[in-house]
Amino acid sequence: MDKAVKIARQRLAMVIEFNGGCFHGWQRQDNAFTVQEAMEIALAKIEGLDCKPEFAAAGRTDSGVHATHMLIHADVLKAMWIKSPQVYVKGLNFHLRDTGVLVHGVKAVGDDFHARFDCYERRYQYKIFNRSVSSTLYGNQAWWVFQSMDVDKMNKAASMVLGEHDFTTFRASGCQSQSSNRNLKVLEVKKDEHMFTVDVAADAFLYHMVRNLVGTLVAVGIGRWEPEFMYELLMAKNRSIAAQTAPAHGLYFTDALYPDFSAQEISGLMG
Amino acid sequence: MDKAVKIARQRLAMVIEFNGGCFHGWQRQDNAFTVQEAMEIALAKIEGLDCKPEFAAAGRTDSGVHATHMLIHADVLKAMWIKSPQVYVKGLNFHLRDTGVLVHGVKAVGDDFHARFDCYERRYQYKIFNRSVSSTLYGNQAWWVFQSMDVDKMNKAASMVLGEHDFTTFRASGCQSQSSNRNLKVLEVKKDEHMFTVDVAADAFLYHMVRNLVGTLVAVGIGRWEPEFMYELLMAKNRSIAAQTAPAHGLYFTDALYPDFSAQEISGLMG
Repeated sequence: MDKAVKIARQRLAMVIEFNGGCFHGWQRQDNAFTVQEAMEIALAKIEGLDCKPEFAAAGRTDSGVHATHMLIHADVLKAMWIKSPQVYVKGLNFHLRDTGVLVHGVKAVGDDFHARFDCYERRYQYKIFNRSVSSTLYGNQAWWVFQSMDVDKMNKAASMVLGEHDFTTFRASGCQSQSSNRNLKVLEVKKDEHMFTVDVAADAFLYHMVRNLVGTLVAVGIGRWEPEFMYELLMAKNRSIAAQTAPAHGLYFTDALYPDFSAQEISGLMG
Repeated sequence: MDKAVKIARQRLAMVIEFNGGCFHGWQRQDNAFTVQEAMEIALAKIEGLDCKPEFAAAGRTDSGVHATHMLIHADVLKAMWIKSPQVYVKGLNFHLRDTGVLVHGVKAVGDDFHARFDCYERRYQYKIFNRSVSSTLYGNQAWWVFQSMDVDKMNKAASMVLGEHDFTTFRASGCQSQSSNRNLKVLEVKKDEHMFTVDVAADAFLYHMVRNLVGTLVAVGIGRWEPEFMYELLMAKNRSIAAQTAPAHGLYFTDALYPDFSAQEISGLMG
């Protein structure tokens, strides 16, 4: 008789925050420390040796990419969870201390909920620090661009690629997606003194798509290309012609939307 | 004959930014690395061995305190400066690389200008990250307070200590100022999701005054004290009764005002 089948489990949706500088991305790897592995180790410490935790995430972020509100799910020991959800989450955060990832929201969901497949919109922010000299304060949190950027030109370029398109130009060579069609819902640049923030939202993203879009917007912002060239690039469907891929450390996964809630909405919940 | 007197020097006002985590404060010390020492070493590397650079600063920040716009002055070799101000500043930043401090604005001023004595207003910001769980992204940049804070109560308390007062209650025991009277011009708390920012401005500050004011505002914010108690504390003129001193790593020196310009106004200037 299989003991495991008798153990009741509760599926939890968790909102996590992580500092990308501490990890080689989300997904488990043999030779590098990842967010997924940190979560698995912490959960196993709480539940004991029999536990083989499995996590799924709304997005599989690259090495170096940060998250303010990444949504993941896992099935935890129901008895332990129900006894005190607050204590359970505090225990998780205790075992996650100093790793660079923490849990700041939890919601009990049905067994049919899936963090990846049920997510219908992902949101990112990309931060660019634009000053002739670099930054001693925000170096790990934003891409330093020293050439002066024109925010209006960037927004003009951004508006040209909104909507459903074949984003082949902006996908990386390692991309495994079968289709290169995506629905880009938001691409907008805001400027606050030296800090530019690019808001991006889509149903899903191709590999490196956000960073390639941002790299191209910066090429427009510094005057290398005219805004209209953004549309020509999109139409060319040729991934060798876009501008440089913006570096990972300026990118933040900021929200994941589901039919019943979003990651931001359940931040602060502990049950 | 003294050779030194023949060397023409140009007084420069410089705006510097530094990450307080890299330094034991501004002021030169025998056994610890400070911002002043970093600046002196960089200037000496540019000007050569004969150079004995001396810097004065608008404020002498504590160990761990950051600055976005600290104003300092020094007398540099006039011939070298005039040849190319831009190259001079780039050279300074080259020698300052990886130290945690950089120069992002320079203005040539008269020999009677003094960064400390001519400054009539200093401005600071204090950042508090207010969430039940800590932050993996802003840990070094803000004070983590896990108890929920009421921004309206904090602002009510803040308004009670504005103006010219004897701030003995909020000075630290090591304070060397002869007078404890200061004119507190701004003390205001703004809230943006989990991040609270306290704007502070005064003609000058007593030792630890900003951090003691913020520590007391937090005690009010979390409900330990009523806002009105802020005024009672001020009136008591007793430095043993204020709340805890807020930690250094949430504090930023943000501006210094002079009759002809401010630190923020000359950021970006290179001459």
